Amino acid sequence: MISKNKKPLGKETERNEIHNKKMQKIKVARDKLMSTKTEEKGLIIVHTGSGKGKSSSAFGMIMRCIAHNLPCAVVQFIKGTWNTGERDFLEKRFQKECLFIVSGEGFTWETQDRERDIAAAKAGWAKAKELIQNSEIKFILLDEINIALRYDYLDIKEVVDFLLYEKPPMTHVVLTGRNAKDELIEVADLVTEMLLVKHPFRDGIKAQKGVEF
Amino acid sequence: MISKNKKPLGKETERNEIHNKKMQKIKVARDKLMSTKTEEKGLIIVHTGSGKGKSSSAFGMIMRCIAHNLPCAVVQFIKGTWNTGERDFLEKRFQKECLFIVSGEGFTWETQDRERDIAAAKAGWAKAKELIQNSEIKFILLDEINIALRYDYLDIKEVVDFLLYEKPPMTHVVLTGRNAKDELIEVADLVTEMLLVKHPFRDGIKAQKGVEF
Repeated sequence: MISKNKKPLGKETERNEIHNKKMQKIKVARDKLMSTKTEEKGLIIVHTGSGKGKSSSAFGMIMRCIAHNLPCAVVQFIKGTWNTGERDFLEKRFQKECLFIVSGEGFTWETQDRERDIAAAKAGWAKAKELIQNSEIKFILLDEINIALRYDYLDIKEVVDFLLYEKPPMTHVVLTGRNAKDELIEVADLVTEMLLVKHPFRDGIKAQKGVEF
Repeated sequence: MISKNKKPLGKETERNEIHNKKMQKIKVARDKLMSTKTEEKGLIIVHTGSGKGKSSSAFGMIMRCIAHNLPCAVVQFIKGTWNTGERDFLEKRFQKECLFIVSGEGFTWETQDRERDIAAAKAGWAKAKELIQNSEIKFILLDEINIALRYDYLDIKEVVDFLLYEKPPMTHVVLTGRNAKDELIEVADLVTEMLLVKHPFRDGIKAQKGVEF
């Protein structure tokens, strides 16, 4: 029986107290850990894997850059029908804040023209190098460049060497696309693999506005 | 020897031809597959895993919705210092296009107050239900709701049942956060797991503008 003078120490109250103490410990450990993270540097970031979100999360980063007034740029190596929403959004509303270059005309099974694909990839890479070396631009997204690297439209060694030795130290470069080459993973600072766990295509659902494009 | 009348079939030309034929086949197969994907429906989408990009890619989707003039909304269950770039961006520039609700005040190790966290999560969920049932809003992001579900601040069965039986059929709902519960994965249409492959924190690099927030 609970005395009238004491507040009832119910199951929920007890759980609250245990939780709060645990979280205090986590905060101490976390603050200590974070205090050791003091350096800033321009990162080589890779988004790969067969799941969704590789390009979208990179476009989310572009949105953050715009919010923070960090000059940024996108080179889109595969145009296709994907990402049209983001492209429209950036091209129409943020021309000043974000440079947008489209190189390449579609997925390689759409163009069916390897020579033209290679020429487009090379033109995109030439533009990318120029943007990366432009010290006024702080964040460059090379969208779907991994596709061009996978098919050897671009030389992986040249790309990796450029990122390592020619990129200004404070510039961030994000490279997206499935099947990122090992050589790129090797030199990257931040690598995320997007894994497909479940996809509505299986159930006959088509690509939809907002979700896929 | 190559006859003068014939173009030299060099190694590169040969590779181009093989590639182009292969891509033609892929296109036929792909077009056939895509023609079976005819249905549209509002999806339950989950972004989980310990890697980056769960929230950013969902914010990328919001950007697409704005580009397509699809009315959308965000309920942010954990405020924290993360995603401030996106929040500023949406709140300042797209108030009309995207409703932005912040519920919860920080990661649970920051607040160290389970009772307050629960109250905030419940308030966020009440607002979320209202937004989901508002037939004018087509896309709702429940950012970091998985954290609230993981700690049982919200009842997983209630959330899952609401998504299954009360969500309008054409409305998309995206739920983000690590440790998504199995019950949610079970009912979701589209699930992506973001895997951490490599992170610069390991090298003493701190969170940086544009990249992390």
